[in-house]
Amino acid sequence: MTKSFVNLRINADRFRARFDALASIGARPEGGAHRPAFNQAHLEARRWFLETARAAGLETAVDGVGNHSGLLRCGPSGALILLLGSHLDTVPRGGRFDGALGVMAALEVLQTVKDHGLTLDTHLEAVDFTDEEGHYANFVGSLGLAGRLQAAHIQSPRGGRERFREALGQAGLSEESLFTAGRDPASLAGYLELHIEQGGRLAEQKVNIGIVTGIVGIRSFKICFLGRADHAGTKPIAHRLDAAQGASAFTLAVREVMLAEFPRCVATVGDMGFAPGAFNVVPEIVTVSLEFRADEEAKLDRIEARLRQQALDAAERFGLKLEIRHLDSTAPAPMDKGVQAAIAGACEMLSLGYLPLPSGAGHDAQCLAPVCPTGMIFLPSIDGFSHSAREFTRWEDCVHGANALLHTALTLAQS
Amino acid sequence: MTKSFVNLRINADRFRARFDALASIGARPEGGAHRPAFNQAHLEARRWFLETARAAGLETAVDGVGNHSGLLRCGPSGALILLLGSHLDTVPRGGRFDGALGVMAALEVLQTVKDHGLTLDTHLEAVDFTDEEGHYANFVGSLGLAGRLQAAHIQSPRGGRERFREALGQAGLSEESLFTAGRDPASLAGYLELHIEQGGRLAEQKVNIGIVTGIVGIRSFKICFLGRADHAGTKPIAHRLDAAQGASAFTLAVREVMLAEFPRCVATVGDMGFAPGAFNVVPEIVTVSLEFRADEEAKLDRIEARLRQQALDAAERFGLKLEIRHLDSTAPAPMDKGVQAAIAGACEMLSLGYLPLPSGAGHDAQCLAPVCPTGMIFLPSIDGFSHSAREFTRWEDCVHGANALLHTALTLAQS
Repeated sequence: MTKSFVNLRINADRFRARFDALASIGARPEGGAHRPAFNQAHLEARRWFLETARAAGLETAVDGVGNHSGLLRCGPSGALILLLGSHLDTVPRGGRFDGALGVMAALEVLQTVKDHGLTLDTHLEAVDFTDEEGHYANFVGSLGLAGRLQAAHIQSPRGGRERFREALGQAGLSEESLFTAGRDPASLAGYLELHIEQGGRLAEQKVNIGIVTGIVGIRSFKICFLGRADHAGTKPIAHRLDAAQGASAFTLAVREVMLAEFPRCVATVGDMGFAPGAFNVVPEIVTVSLEFRADEEAKLDRIEARLRQQALDAAERFGLKLEIRHLDSTAPAPMDKGVQAAIAGACEMLSLGYLPLPSGAGHDAQCLAPVCPTGMIFLPSIDGFSHSAREFTRWEDCVHGANALLHTALTLAQS
Repeated sequence: MTKSFVNLRINADRFRARFDALASIGARPEGGAHRPAFNQAHLEARRWFLETARAAGLETAVDGVGNHSGLLRCGPSGALILLLGSHLDTVPRGGRFDGALGVMAALEVLQTVKDHGLTLDTHLEAVDFTDEEGHYANFVGSLGLAGRLQAAHIQSPRGGRERFREALGQAGLSEESLFTAGRDPASLAGYLELHIEQGGRLAEQKVNIGIVTGIVGIRSFKICFLGRADHAGTKPIAHRLDAAQGASAFTLAVREVMLAEFPRCVATVGDMGFAPGAFNVVPEIVTVSLEFRADEEAKLDRIEARLRQQALDAAERFGLKLEIRHLDSTAPAPMDKGVQAAIAGACEMLSLGYLPLPSGAGHDAQCLAPVCPTGMIFLPSIDGFSHSAREFTRWEDCVHGANALLHTALTLAQS
C-alpha cells in the first residue's frame, strides 16, 4: 500500500443514504425487504443500482446471466479487473443487509477511488450477482460469471421451469444467454465480498471484522429407516419394527456426536417424512433429511463416516433396515491466503479488531474462489439473526467494513 | 343350556363355501379383498349376503343406516332379539377374514338353529354393519343401530362430505336416513361378534378362542414442540432451539415408559410434521401425532399423565415450548361378564382352549356394549397380520369359532 492512501476513507453519509434508498425498494412493514430474484422490487433495485453507478461515473453493464455491474477504469489499458460485489436479491421477507450491504459497499469503494482520482494497477468493478439466494437456481449469476454454470443447474429451478423462463424473459434474458456471461479467469485480479456474518460469533466476541478462512462444504442425504406397518392397537410395542424409533434415536445421536466430536461444525435434521403417517399405524418408513457442513473435505468425510455409523446403530437397535441416499455435495471453498492477509493488514491499519472464521452459509464468493484470488469480509450480526426482518448490523460496523473493503482493494489493486 | 343341544354343530362345509364365495367379491390378485364401504364390490357383497340369507329362509331387511340383516324368528311372539354380526366392508386392499368371517359365522349359526327347528327364548338376527372400517365415518352402522349416532360424527367424513352423500345416495340412503335406524335397547337381548384377533397372542399361545374382556379406549393428541427457525449453516448446534430434538426424545421416551410401566398397553407416534421442513433450516415446530390405548379409563388417565410429563421433560431438555392439543377420546368398552361366562362355558363344552384378553382394535361391539349385553369371540391370527392380504386364520379355528358362537348364542337365547 502506498503511503498516500493511508488516510483515505469512504464517504459514510453517501454510503448510508444509498443503503437506505436501496432498503426502501421492496421494504416490508415489519422492517425487512422482500426482493426474491426477478420480482418487481428486485428488478427495480437493479435498475436503481445501475442508474446510481452511472450517475457516479462508472461504466455500467448487464451480462447474459443478468449480473449488473459498474466498472471504474482506474488501471492502465488492458489491466486486470478486481471484482467487488454481492447480491441485491433477498430471500422472501428477508433482511435489509444480506447482500445489499456488500453491493453498496463495493459501489462506495469505487466512487471513493474515483473521487480521489487514484490510479491503480487494476480496474475495479462493482457487481450485483443474479439469484444468490436461489429463488430459482442459487448462485446462477456468480457461477455464470465464473464460467462454471452447468446445464444441469438450471434444469429444475425451484418454482418450475416455466416460471423461470418467464422471469428470465421479463428481465431480457433467456436460458441460452445464461451461459454467455463467463469471464476469462486470466482477466480477473480477484474477487472481494463484504457480507454480514449471519451468525453471532463476531457480535458475541465484540470484534469488528471477520476474515473468512473458507466457505463450508455441504453434503445432504435422505436417510430412510424401514420397519413394518402394524396395527397401532393390536401390535405389542415389544414386537414392533417402528421406523420412528430409529429416526428419533438417529436425530438425537446426530446432535450428540457433533457436539462431542465436531464442535465447530454443524449437522441438521431439517425434516422427516412418515409413511403411512397415520395415528393408528406403526410407522413403516421414516425418511430423515440430513445435511452437514465443514470447511474441509477431510472433515466432511469424517463427519459422514460417523453419522453413517450412527444411522446403522439406530436401525440395528430397533430391528430396522436402512437406506442412505446421497443427494448433493458442495465442496468447501477455501479463501485465498493472500487476500486474507490483505484484509488483516487493512484492519490493522484501521485499528479494527478481526477474527478469522469459516462461513457456515454459502456465498457468491465460493463460485469465484476456484477461478481467482477470493476473499470475504464479515460484519457482526446482532444476535445472529439472518433471513429475517430482525437481521441487523450496527451502522458504525458497516462503515468500518466498507473502509476495510476499500483498503483491502487498494492493497490487491497494487500488487 | 338344555342337554339336547350339546351335540349341535354348525355345517362346516356350507360355512366354508359361503366364506369362499364372499371372499371372491372384490378379491385381489395378491390374496386379499378390496371392499371399502360403498364401493362396487362392497355393495355387491351386501346384495349377495341378503340373497343368501333370504334363500336360507331368514327375513331380510336394510335399515336407514344401511345395515343389512337376516332375522330368524325362533323365539315366542314379541321376544327380544339376540344380534350376531360384524361387517362386510374392508380397509382398502384388506384381508378376507376381518369382518366377513363374523357375518358368515352369524349366518351359519342362524341357519343351523333353523335347520334343527329349535325354539329359543329370543329371536336371532345376523347383522352386517355399515362402514365399520371408517372409509367415510367409522362404526356409523353400529352407532346408528344402537341409537348413539351423533350429527357431528358425519359432519366431516373422510374423503369429503360430497363423496359421502353421493355414496349414500347410490346405496339408497341419505344423511337424514342414517338417524332412523336406532333400535329400542329394551328390544335387544344382546350382541355377539366373532372376529379375528388381529394380533399374535392367541396363535403364539396356541389357544383356540379369545374371550374379549373389553375393547380398549383410545386417546389421541397432537403434541407440538416449538423452537426457533435458524440458519442450518451459521447457527452453532449448542445455541439452537431445535424442535426435532424434543420430538425425537419424546418419541423414544413414549416407547420406554410404555414398556416399563404399561407393558400390556400400547402408545404410538404415528406421524410427525416439520415446519419449515427444509434441509437448511433448524426445525422451528415439530408436531407429533400420538395415540394410546388401554382397557380402563383409570389406566388411560395414568398413561396420559406419564406421557404429558415425558413431553414436558423433552421440551425442557432442549429449551422448547410445548403445546398439547387433545384431539379425540373413545371410552373403553368392557364386555358383559355374563356373556364372557357364556363364551367360556361354550368353549369348555366344546373342549376348546380359551384366553381372556382385551381387544386393542375397535369393533362394532363397542358401540353396542353401552345398550345391551355384549361379547366378542376372537380367533387366532397367524403372525398377527391385519388389514393386509397376509391376514390369515386356520380354517379349523374358524369352525371352532363358529361352534363357540353357536353355543354361546344358545346359552344367551335361553336365559
